[in-house]
Amino acid sequence: MAEATGAIDEASNMKVILKHYVSGSPQETDMHLTAGTIKLKAPTDSNAVVVKNLFLSCDPYMVFKMMKLDRHYSESYTPGLPITGYGVAKVLDSSHPDFKNDDLVWGLTGWEEYSLITETNHLFKIQHTDVPLSYYAGILGMPGMTAYIGFYELCSPKTGEYVFVSAASGAVGQLVGQFAKLQGCYVVGCAGSNEKNKFGFDEAFNYKEEPDYNAALKRFFPEGIDIYFDNVGGKILDAVLLNLRVYARIAVCGMISQYNLEQPEGVHNLTSIVMKQVRMQGYLVFDYYHLYPKYLQMILPMIREGKVVYVEDIADGLENAPAALVGLFSGRNIGKQVVAVNCV
Amino acid sequence: MAEATGAIDEASNMKVILKHYVSGSPQETDMHLTAGTIKLKAPTDSNAVVVKNLFLSCDPYMVFKMMKLDRHYSESYTPGLPITGYGVAKVLDSSHPDFKNDDLVWGLTGWEEYSLITETNHLFKIQHTDVPLSYYAGILGMPGMTAYIGFYELCSPKTGEYVFVSAASGAVGQLVGQFAKLQGCYVVGCAGSNEKNKFGFDEAFNYKEEPDYNAALKRFFPEGIDIYFDNVGGKILDAVLLNLRVYARIAVCGMISQYNLEQPEGVHNLTSIVMKQVRMQGYLVFDYYHLYPKYLQMILPMIREGKVVYVEDIADGLENAPAALVGLFSGRNIGKQVVAVNCV
Repeated sequence: MAEATGAIDEASNMKVILKHYVSGSPQETDMHLTAGTIKLKAPTDSNAVVVKNLFLSCDPYMVFKMMKLDRHYSESYTPGLPITGYGVAKVLDSSHPDFKNDDLVWGLTGWEEYSLITETNHLFKIQHTDVPLSYYAGILGMPGMTAYIGFYELCSPKTGEYVFVSAASGAVGQLVGQFAKLQGCYVVGCAGSNEKNKFGFDEAFNYKEEPDYNAALKRFFPEGIDIYFDNVGGKILDAVLLNLRVYARIAVCGMISQYNLEQPEGVHNLTSIVMKQVRMQGYLVFDYYHLYPKYLQMILPMIREGKVVYVEDIADGLENAPAALVGLFSGRNIGKQVVAVNCV
Repeated sequence: MAEATGAIDEASNMKVILKHYVSGSPQETDMHLTAGTIKLKAPTDSNAVVVKNLFLSCDPYMVFKMMKLDRHYSESYTPGLPITGYGVAKVLDSSHPDFKNDDLVWGLTGWEEYSLITETNHLFKIQHTDVPLSYYAGILGMPGMTAYIGFYELCSPKTGEYVFVSAASGAVGQLVGQFAKLQGCYVVGCAGSNEKNKFGFDEAFNYKEEPDYNAALKRFFPEGIDIYFDNVGGKILDAVLLNLRVYARIAVCGMISQYNLEQPEGVHNLTSIVMKQVRMQGYLVFDYYHLYPKYLQMILPMIREGKVVYVEDIADGLENAPAALVGLFSGRNIGKQVVAVNCV
């Protein structure tokens, strides 16, 4: 009988494995798919849960975990093991008092069909299912919180201010722009494509078509920039520094243009920080998860009333996950890049 | 009788004139001394005061006012007129209700023997004269407030933190280091000389003798840096960015290494701002003068009890003022550079 249950509890489990540490831009060939098995039973007294993964989130920070770096800000992945990331999942078995079978959760999970999650600190129970489940990998999950914290908590926006957002069609940028519009700000976004105004910005431009970023910013911001939500760093940041207004704020969410360079680009215009009395703040959303309930209170009605839209780019199936992840770094995705796994 | 009074009220007045706008490092020859006269009477109903200047303060920001710049943060000087700056002075005549004859004041005045001050917003009456008067051009004036605001208000220091100060022997840096020591921090300063430990820092180094700033910082801060008080920007800032601890704070008081460059140096390590969740804040002390009474309450007892020392480099006479000012940019001064004028 015990053996029979064991047999029933074990499932085949497709996984996305990191082949080796990456240097420079990650490639699809840095990962491979492999079949394994998993016991669909959480060890007794382990506080762990076993989940069926439904959506996996492709996020820029994951590239650091694919590298072996001194300057990393989280532990690297282990070559030969599945990579991990944010996802939406369904609890199949739980030995944790806060989670029970069939609960829907979002948080850190594995890039595989089923995962045993032993670190449940960053696992949130999903309470509202009248919105698309995949949103918990985006607007209702880590990227949504990232936009919320960076814009509202760090930039203290005021009505009428001039806001610039880079990577404006990404998971975070598209939300920052919408938050800024709802706040009564003038908002310009830039991205690596021509999906102009898709997100209701006042203006948008494709940085690949602008030979002179400084000139572009002067065109869109003749009065200068009060708030810059930085996702890219490098040359765009440098041009922004030349176009800041006094008391400008820069929330540094990421510097994706720099992560894969051997030698990061030089930023020349930092004297603006003194000249214009600028505050520049880097942050990780993990430090602000205690504000998640407050965020949900704000964002759920906005979603339900159609005041914000959230564009997703959903890749279908774990076999397409490596390409989806790699695409983030070439600006391939329009909207939040998600991978649907196991969705029925 | 009126004519006789007029004659008595007029005095000869030596002035330091800006010859022409400066580009690059200012030179003594960019200024010249000229003799003039001044009426020692404040126009009736003008709210102005006429003062006898006692000490003039040489401050890095003055170089901007010597240039004709787009990116300036205060109005340029006018070639042919005396330059202006902070100073300590004695009121000779006043039509302002807050100031009376023989009051001692500090604030913005002219580089000349006597000045008619019409903008009295930034003029403070000196209430405590048991301390050296020249201190009101330094520790008890604008530079003191600059150190106080940058360190306490912007960096929120905690006991045991690791603090690095550049331009550590200057008007502001020497105080930041002492404040940090009094706060129970570990403090290292760097300067362009070997006046090691003159200001009671834990360690100090001469950046001119360090071929590799990153290596120097790793040696002095094996645990990394929590607070960087930046007076210089450029290559030292870039090395600091490589050695920051998580949640580090950078108060950007100045970037003196960059002001006279045609093309500012590139700073390559800004990704640390995200990786280490760093806050970097530029500021001007003018925005914080409402806190001056609070600062005096803290600093006066410290001076009287010998808990802080303040090193001054006092040049004697207006004729030596241009050389004293220019010396700031070659790191000539040890301590706060002041010019004594009219001191008897």
